[in-house]
Amino acid sequence: MTQAPRDIEDLIELMARLPGLGPRSARRAVLHLIKKRGQLLMPLADTMQNVAVTARECVNCGNVGTSEICEICASAKRANGEICVVEDVADLWAMERASVFRGRYHVLGGTLSALDSIGPEELRIPRLVERISEENISEVILALNATIDGQTTAHYIAEQLEPLGIAVTSLAQGVPVGGELDYLDDGTITAALRARKAL
Amino acid sequence: MTQAPRDIEDLIELMARLPGLGPRSARRAVLHLIKKRGQLLMPLADTMQNVAVTARECVNCGNVGTSEICEICASAKRANGEICVVEDVADLWAMERASVFRGRYHVLGGTLSALDSIGPEELRIPRLVERISEENISEVILALNATIDGQTTAHYIAEQLEPLGIAVTSLAQGVPVGGELDYLDDGTITAALRARKAL
Ligand SMILES: [Zn+2]
Ligand SMILES: [Zn+2]
Repeated sequence: MTQAPRDIEDLIELMARLPGLGPRSARRAVLHLIKKRGQLLMPLADTMQNVAVTARECVNCGNVGTSEICEICASAKRANGEICVVEDVADLWAMERASVFRGRYHVLGGTLSALDSIGPEELRIPRLVERISEENISEVILALNATIDGQTTAHYIAEQLEPLGIAVTSLAQGVPVGGELDYLDDGTITAALRARKAL
Repeated sequence: MTQAPRDIEDLIELMARLPGLGPRSARRAVLHLIKKRGQLLMPLADTMQNVAVTARECVNCGNVGTSEICEICASAKRANGEICVVEDVADLWAMERASVFRGRYHVLGGTLSALDSIGPEELRIPRLVERISEENISEVILALNATIDGQTTAHYIAEQLEPLGIAVTSLAQGVPVGGELDYLDDGTITAALRARKAL
Protein backbone atom coordinates (compact mmCIF):
# COMPACT_ATOMS: atom_id res chain seq x y z
CA MET A 1 0.00 0.00 0.00
CA THR A 2 2.72 2.50 0.89
CA GLN A 3 5.91 0.44 0.49
CA ALA A 4 6.80 1.39 4.06
CA PRO A 5 8.24 -1.20 6.48
CA ARG A 6 5.73 -3.74 7.87
CA ASP A 7 5.26 -2.08 11.30
CA ILE A 8 4.63 1.32 9.73
CA GLU A 9 2.17 -0.19 7.22
CA ASP A 10 0.37 -1.91 10.12
CA LEU A 11 0.24 1.32 12.09
CA ILE A 12 -1.29 3.19 9.13
CA GLU A 13 -3.82 0.41 8.59
CA LEU A 14 -4.88 0.46 12.27
CA MET A 15 -5.02 4.27 12.46
CA ALA A 16 -7.20 4.32 9.33
CA ARG A 17 -9.84 2.37 11.28
CA LEU A 18 -10.39 5.28 13.69
CA PRO A 19 -13.56 7.32 13.13
CA GLY A 20 -12.71 10.50 11.24
CA LEU A 21 -9.48 9.17 9.71
CA GLY A 22 -9.20 7.58 6.27
CA PRO A 23 -6.15 5.99 4.62
CA ARG A 24 -4.69 9.34 3.56
CA SER A 25 -5.08 11.11 6.89
CA ALA A 26 -3.80 7.97 8.64
CA ARG A 27 -0.60 8.16 6.53
CA ARG A 28 -0.20 11.85 7.41
CA ALA A 29 -0.81 11.12 11.09
CA VAL A 30 1.76 8.29 11.16
CA LEU A 31 4.42 10.42 9.44
CA HIS A 32 3.69 13.18 11.95
CA LEU A 33 4.08 10.67 14.80
CA ILE A 34 7.43 9.45 13.46
CA LYS A 35 8.67 13.04 13.08
CA LYS A 36 7.61 13.82 16.67
CA ARG A 37 8.92 10.55 18.07
CA GLY A 38 10.01 11.80 21.50
CA GLN A 39 7.31 14.42 22.05
CA LEU A 40 4.32 12.56 20.69
CA LEU A 41 4.80 8.98 19.43
CA MET A 42 6.44 7.61 22.59
CA PRO A 43 4.05 9.24 25.11
CA LEU A 44 1.09 8.24 22.92
CA ALA A 45 2.25 4.61 22.70
CA ASP A 46 2.76 4.47 26.48
CA THR A 47 -0.57 6.10 27.30
CA MET A 48 -2.36 3.81 24.87
CA GLN A 49 -0.80 0.78 26.59
CA ASN A 50 -1.98 2.11 29.97
CA VAL A 51 -5.51 2.70 28.72
CA ALA A 52 -5.58 -0.73 27.04
CA VAL A 53 -4.75 -2.30 30.40
CA THR A 54 -6.86 -0.17 32.74
CA ALA A 55 -9.94 1.13 30.87
CA ARG A 56 -13.19 -0.69 31.44
CA GLU A 57 -16.93 -0.12 31.34
CA CYS A 58 -18.72 0.56 34.61
CA VAL A 59 -20.93 -2.50 35.24
CA ASN A 60 -23.56 -0.23 36.79
CA CYS A 61 -23.95 2.62 34.29
CA GLY A 62 -21.77 1.93 31.21
CA ASN A 63 -19.47 4.92 31.81
CA VAL A 64 -15.78 4.43 31.04
CA GLY A 65 -13.36 4.26 33.95
CA THR A 66 -10.54 2.28 35.50
CA SER A 67 -12.50 0.16 37.95
CA GLU A 68 -15.54 -2.13 37.94
CA ILE A 69 -17.69 0.73 39.30
CA CYS A 70 -16.93 4.19 37.86
CA GLU A 71 -16.10 7.21 40.02
CA ILE A 72 -19.53 8.75 39.56
CA CYS A 73 -21.39 5.58 40.60
CA ALA A 74 -18.95 5.12 43.52
CA SER A 75 -19.43 8.67 44.81
CA ALA A 76 -22.03 9.07 47.56
CA LYS A 77 -22.26 12.78 46.65
CA ARG A 78 -23.75 11.85 43.29
CA ALA A 79 -26.57 9.82 44.91
CA ASN A 80 -29.15 12.64 44.72
CA GLY A 81 -31.98 10.50 43.40
CA GLU A 82 -31.47 11.57 39.78
CA ILE A 83 -30.25 9.55 36.80
CA CYS A 84 -29.46 11.18 33.47
CA VAL A 85 -29.79 8.76 30.53
CA VAL A 86 -27.38 9.43 27.62
CA GLU A 87 -26.66 7.64 24.36
CA ASP A 88 -22.91 7.36 24.81
CA VAL A 89 -19.95 8.31 26.99
CA ALA A 90 -19.14 11.35 24.84
CA ASP A 91 -22.57 12.74 25.80
CA LEU A 92 -21.85 12.02 29.49
CA TRP A 93 -18.60 14.00 29.14
CA ALA A 94 -20.49 16.87 27.47
CA MET A 95 -22.94 16.94 30.41
CA GLU A 96 -20.06 16.87 32.92
CA ARG A 97 -18.30 19.77 31.15
CA ALA A 98 -21.46 21.83 31.65
CA SER A 99 -21.08 21.18 35.43
CA VAL A 100 -24.82 21.53 35.97
CA PHE A 101 -26.01 17.99 36.69
CA ARG A 102 -25.09 16.51 40.09
CA GLY A 103 -26.67 13.06 39.87
CA ARG A 104 -25.61 9.82 38.20
CA TYR A 105 -25.77 8.58 34.60
CA HIS A 106 -26.95 5.65 32.60
CA VAL A 107 -25.13 5.16 29.29
CA LEU A 108 -27.20 3.28 26.71
CA GLY A 109 -24.40 2.79 24.20
CA GLY A 110 -26.68 3.62 21.26
CA THR A 111 -30.36 3.82 20.35
CA LEU A 112 -33.02 1.22 19.63
CA SER A 113 -32.79 0.05 16.05
CA ALA A 114 -34.73 -2.82 14.52
CA LEU A 115 -32.50 -2.58 11.46
CA ASP A 116 -29.29 -3.17 13.45
CA SER A 117 -31.06 -5.56 15.89
CA ILE A 118 -30.34 -3.25 18.82
CA GLY A 119 -33.01 -4.02 21.41
CA PRO A 120 -33.54 -2.98 25.05
CA GLU A 121 -31.06 -5.60 26.36
CA GLU A 122 -28.24 -4.20 24.22
CA LEU A 123 -28.95 -0.73 25.63
CA ARG A 124 -28.89 -1.74 29.31
CA ILE A 125 -32.56 -0.72 29.69
CA PRO A 126 -33.42 -3.64 32.04
CA ARG A 127 -30.47 -2.57 34.22
CA LEU A 128 -31.82 1.01 34.25
CA VAL A 129 -35.17 -0.27 35.56
CA GLU A 130 -33.37 -2.22 38.34
CA ARG A 131 -31.38 0.86 39.36
CA ILE A 132 -34.55 2.90 40.07
CA SER A 133 -35.28 0.97 43.29
CA GLU A 134 -31.69 -0.04 44.09
CA GLU A 135 -30.51 3.58 44.10
CA ASN A 136 -33.73 5.13 45.34
CA ILE A 137 -34.23 7.21 42.18
CA SER A 138 -36.99 9.83 42.05
CA GLU A 139 -36.28 11.35 38.60
CA VAL A 140 -34.89 10.05 35.31
CA ILE A 141 -33.78 12.76 32.87
CA LEU A 142 -33.64 11.58 29.27
CA ALA A 143 -30.78 13.45 27.55
CA LEU A 144 -30.92 11.65 24.23
CA ASN A 145 -30.08 13.22 20.89
CA ALA A 146 -32.90 15.10 19.15
CA THR A 147 -32.90 12.59 16.30
CA ILE A 148 -35.70 10.23 15.30
CA ASP A 149 -33.84 7.23 16.81
CA GLY A 150 -33.03 9.18 19.97
CA GLN A 151 -36.62 10.25 20.46
CA THR A 152 -38.01 6.77 19.70
CA THR A 153 -35.69 5.36 22.35
CA ALA A 154 -36.70 8.09 24.83
CA HIS A 155 -40.39 7.22 24.36
CA TYR A 156 -39.69 3.52 24.85
CA ILE A 157 -37.79 4.17 28.09
CA ALA A 158 -40.51 6.51 29.37
CA GLU A 159 -43.03 3.70 28.81
CA GLN A 160 -40.90 1.19 30.72
CA LEU A 161 -40.53 3.57 33.66
CA GLU A 162 -44.17 4.66 33.74
CA PRO A 163 -45.38 1.91 36.17
CA LEU A 164 -42.66 2.90 38.68
CA GLY A 165 -44.32 6.23 39.45
CA ILE A 166 -41.16 8.36 39.26
CA ALA A 167 -40.67 11.61 37.33
CA VAL A 168 -39.40 11.08 33.77
CA THR A 169 -38.24 14.28 32.08
CA SER A 170 -36.19 15.23 29.06
CA LEU A 171 -33.87 18.10 28.17
CA ALA A 172 -35.80 21.11 26.90
CA GLN A 173 -35.62 21.75 23.18
CA GLY A 174 -35.13 25.28 21.98
CA VAL A 175 -32.76 27.92 20.69
CA PRO A 176 -29.15 27.17 21.73
CA VAL A 177 -27.47 29.83 23.86
CA GLY A 178 -25.83 32.29 21.46
CA GLY A 179 -27.77 30.73 18.61
CA GLU A 180 -29.12 32.89 15.79
CA LEU A 181 -32.60 32.12 14.54
CA ASP A 182 -31.51 32.52 10.96
CA TYR A 183 -29.17 29.52 11.32
CA LEU A 184 -31.65 27.17 13.00
CA ASP A 185 -33.64 24.49 11.25
CA ASP A 186 -37.44 24.64 11.22
CA GLY A 187 -37.78 21.83 13.73
CA THR A 188 -35.75 23.69 16.34
CA ILE A 189 -37.72 26.91 15.84
CA THR A 190 -41.01 25.01 16.07
CA ALA A 191 -39.90 23.28 19.28
CA ALA A 192 -38.67 26.55 20.75
CA LEU A 193 -41.93 28.32 19.97
CA ARG A 194 -44.05 25.53 21.44
CA ALA A 195 -41.96 25.52 24.62
CA ARG A 196 -42.11 29.32 24.98
CA LYS A 197 -42.18 30.65 28.51
CA ALA A 198 -43.57 33.81 30.11
CA LEU A 199 -40.86 36.34 30.97
CA MET B 1 -11.92 18.66 30.29
CA THR B 2 -13.94 15.45 30.07
CA GLN B 3 -13.98 14.21 33.69
CA ALA B 4 -12.58 10.92 32.43
CA PRO B 5 -9.79 9.13 34.36
CA ARG B 6 -6.29 10.66 34.03
CA ASP B 7 -4.95 8.15 31.47
CA ILE B 8 -7.98 8.55 29.24
CA GLU B 9 -7.75 12.36 29.47
CA ASP B 10 -4.06 12.13 28.53
CA LEU B 11 -4.84 9.86 25.61
CA ILE B 12 -7.46 12.29 24.28
CA GLU B 13 -5.08 15.22 24.69
CA LEU B 14 -2.29 13.40 22.76
CA MET B 15 -4.63 12.17 20.02
CA ALA B 16 -5.94 15.72 19.55
CA ARG B 17 -2.40 16.75 18.49
CA LEU B 18 -2.54 14.56 15.39
CA PRO B 19 -3.11 16.38 12.10
CA GLY B 20 -6.76 16.13 11.10
CA LEU B 21 -8.06 15.44 14.62
CA GLY B 22 -9.38 18.10 17.00
CA PRO B 23 -10.54 17.71 20.62
CA ARG B 24 -13.98 16.44 19.64
CA SER B 25 -12.81 13.86 17.10
CA ALA B 26 -10.04 12.79 19.51
CA ARG B 27 -12.69 12.07 22.17
CA ARG B 28 -14.70 10.03 19.63
CA ALA B 29 -11.57 8.16 18.53
CA VAL B 30 -10.58 7.30 22.12
CA LEU B 31 -14.09 6.04 22.97
CA HIS B 32 -14.00 3.95 19.80
CA LEU B 33 -10.61 2.54 20.84
CA ILE B 34 -11.90 1.62 24.32
CA LYS B 35 -14.96 -0.08 22.81
CA LYS B 36 -12.73 -2.07 20.43
CA ARG B 37 -10.13 -2.86 23.06
CA GLY B 38 -9.10 -6.30 21.83
CA GLN B 39 -9.50 -5.73 18.09
CA LEU B 40 -8.07 -2.22 17.84
CA LEU B 41 -6.70 -0.57 21.00
CA MET B 42 -4.31 -3.36 22.00
CA PRO B 43 -2.88 -4.01 18.51
CA LEU B 44 -2.58 -0.25 17.93
CA ALA B 45 -0.74 0.29 21.24
CA ASP B 46 1.64 -2.59 20.46
CA THR B 47 2.31 -1.45 16.90
CA MET B 48 2.87 2.11 18.07
CA GLN B 49 5.45 0.86 20.58
CA ASN B 50 7.20 -1.10 17.83
CA VAL B 51 7.29 1.89 15.50
CA ALA B 52 8.49 4.18 18.32
CA VAL B 53 11.41 1.82 18.86
CA THR B 54 12.30 0.93 15.27
CA ALA B 55 11.35 3.81 12.96
CA ARG B 56 14.14 6.10 11.82
CA GLU B 57 15.07 8.42 8.99
CA CYS B 58 17.41 7.08 6.29
CA VAL B 59 20.66 9.04 6.66
CA ASN B 60 21.11 8.96 2.88
CA CYS B 61 17.72 10.04 1.51
CA GLY B 62 15.42 10.99 4.42
CA ASN B 63 12.94 8.16 3.76
CA VAL B 64 11.42 6.46 6.81
CA GLY B 65 12.53 2.93 7.58
CA THR B 66 13.81 0.65 10.29
CA SER B 67 17.55 0.89 9.64
CA GLU B 68 20.18 3.57 9.14
CA ILE B 69 19.92 3.11 5.37
CA CYS B 70 16.40 2.54 4.01
CA GLU B 71 15.45 -0.44 1.85
CA ILE B 72 15.38 1.61 -1.34
CA CYS B 73 18.86 3.08 -0.79
CA ALA B 74 20.16 -0.37 0.21
CA SER B 75 18.77 -2.08 -2.91
CA ALA B 76 21.23 -2.42 -5.81
CA LYS B 77 18.21 -2.81 -8.13
CA ARG B 78 17.24 0.79 -7.44
CA ALA B 79 20.68 2.10 -8.48
CA ASN B 80 19.59 3.02 -12.03
CA GLY B 81 21.25 6.44 -12.06
CA GLU B 82 18.01 8.30 -11.28
CA ILE B 83 17.02 10.20 -8.15
CA CYS B 84 13.50 11.49 -7.64
CA VAL B 85 13.35 14.49 -5.31
CA VAL B 86 10.15 14.75 -3.21
CA GLU B 87 8.98 17.10 -0.48
CA ASP B 88 8.07 14.46 2.07
CA VAL B 89 7.74 10.75 2.71
CA ALA B 90 4.00 10.77 1.90
CA ASP B 91 4.98 11.87 -1.64
CA LEU B 92 7.57 9.08 -1.85
CA TRP B 93 4.82 6.61 -0.88
CA ALA B 94 2.53 8.11 -3.53
CA MET B 95 5.27 7.62 -6.16
CA GLU B 96 5.87 4.04 -5.00
CA ARG B 97 2.15 3.25 -5.17
CA ALA B 98 2.22 4.27 -8.84
CA SER B 99 4.96 1.61 -9.36
CA VAL B 100 6.45 3.50 -12.29
CA PHE B 101 9.71 4.90 -10.93
CA ARG B 102 12.56 2.42 -10.44
CA GLY B 103 15.32 4.67 -9.10
CA ARG B 104 16.02 6.16 -5.68
CA TYR B 105 14.60 9.13 -3.80
CA HIS B 106 15.72 12.22 -1.98
CA VAL B 107 13.24 13.48 0.62
CA LEU B 108 13.60 17.20 1.30
CA GLY B 109 11.30 17.31 4.30
CA GLY B 110 9.69 20.56 3.14
CA THR B 111 10.32 23.48 0.83
CA LEU B 112 12.55 26.53 1.01
CA SER B 113 10.93 29.24 3.08
CA ALA B 114 12.56 32.47 4.19
CA LEU B 115 9.60 33.05 6.49
CA ASP B 116 10.13 29.81 8.41
CA SER B 117 13.96 30.01 8.05
CA ILE B 118 14.05 26.80 6.06
CA GLY B 119 17.20 26.94 3.97
CA PRO B 120 19.04 24.41 1.75
CA GLU B 121 20.75 22.75 4.77
CA GLU B 122 17.40 21.98 6.40
CA LEU B 123 16.25 20.36 3.15
CA ARG B 124 19.27 18.06 2.71
CA ILE B 125 20.16 19.83 -0.56
CA PRO B 126 23.96 19.68 0.08
CA ARG B 127 23.58 15.93 0.64
CA LEU B 128 21.69 15.66 -2.68
CA VAL B 129 24.61 17.32 -4.48
CA GLU B 130 27.05 14.84 -2.88
CA ARG B 131 24.91 11.89 -3.93
CA ILE B 132 25.15 12.80 -7.63
CA SER B 133 28.77 11.63 -7.84
CA GLU B 134 28.69 9.07 -5.03
CA GLU B 135 25.81 7.16 -6.65
CA ASN B 136 26.75 7.89 -10.27
CA ILE B 137 23.51 9.75 -10.97
CA SER B 138 22.66 10.80 -14.53
CA GLU B 139 19.18 12.26 -13.98
CA VAL B 140 17.44 14.05 -11.14
CA ILE B 141 13.64 14.17 -11.40
CA LEU B 142 12.06 16.95 -9.38
CA ALA B 143 8.67 15.69 -8.16
CA LEU B 144 7.76 18.65 -5.99
CA ASN B 145 4.25 19.90 -5.40
CA ALA B 146 2.87 22.31 -8.00
CA THR B 147 2.72 25.07 -5.41
CA ILE B 148 4.69 28.34 -5.43
CA ASP B 149 7.01 27.06 -2.67
CA GLY B 150 7.46 23.71 -4.40
CA GLN B 151 8.36 25.35 -7.71
CA THR B 152 10.70 27.90 -6.07
CA THR B 153 12.51 25.01 -4.43
CA ALA B 154 12.64 23.09 -7.72
CA HIS B 155 14.28 26.05 -9.47
CA TYR B 156 16.81 26.46 -6.67
CA ILE B 157 17.76 22.77 -6.85
CA ALA B 158 18.01 22.91 -10.67
CA GLU B 159 20.45 25.82 -10.30
CA GLN B 160 22.58 23.92 -7.80
CA LEU B 161 22.75 20.88 -10.05
CA GLU B 162 23.36 22.80 -13.28
CA PRO B 163 27.23 22.77 -13.02
CA LEU B 164 27.22 18.97 -12.66
CA GLY B 165 26.08 18.45 -16.24
CA ILE B 166 23.39 15.89 -15.50
CA ALA B 167 19.78 15.88 -16.72
CA VAL B 168 17.41 17.71 -14.40
CA THR B 169 13.75 17.10 -15.18
CA SER B 170 10.47 17.67 -13.47
CA LEU B 171 7.04 16.08 -13.45
CA ALA B 172 4.94 18.12 -15.83
CA GLN B 173 1.85 16.89 -17.56
CA GLY B 174 -0.90 15.73 -15.27
CA VAL B 175 0.04 17.64 -12.13
CA PRO B 176 -2.76 20.14 -11.63
CA VAL B 177 -1.83 23.71 -10.69
CA GLY B 178 -1.98 24.00 -6.92
CA GLY B 179 -2.23 20.22 -6.63
CA GLU B 180 -0.37 18.04 -4.17
CA LEU B 181 1.10 14.70 -5.20
CA ASP B 182 -0.39 12.78 -2.34
CA TYR B 183 -3.91 13.54 -3.66
CA LEU B 184 -3.26 12.22 -7.16
CA ASP B 185 -4.28 8.85 -8.54
CA ASP B 186 -1.67 6.43 -9.86
CA GLY B 187 -2.53 7.10 -13.50
CA THR B 188 -1.93 10.82 -13.16
CA ILE B 189 1.44 10.24 -11.52
CA THR B 190 2.40 7.75 -14.23
CA ALA B 191 1.42 10.20 -16.99
CA ALA B 192 3.31 13.02 -15.31
CA LEU B 193 6.47 10.96 -14.96
CA ARG B 194 6.37 9.76 -18.59
CA ALA B 195 5.88 13.34 -19.85
CA ARG B 196 8.72 14.77 -17.74
CA LYS B 197 10.58 17.64 -19.39
CA ALA B 198 14.11 19.04 -19.20
CA LEU B 199 14.33 22.27 -17.19
ZN1 LIG C 1 -20.94 4.06 36.67
ZN1 LIG D 1 17.19 6.01 1.81
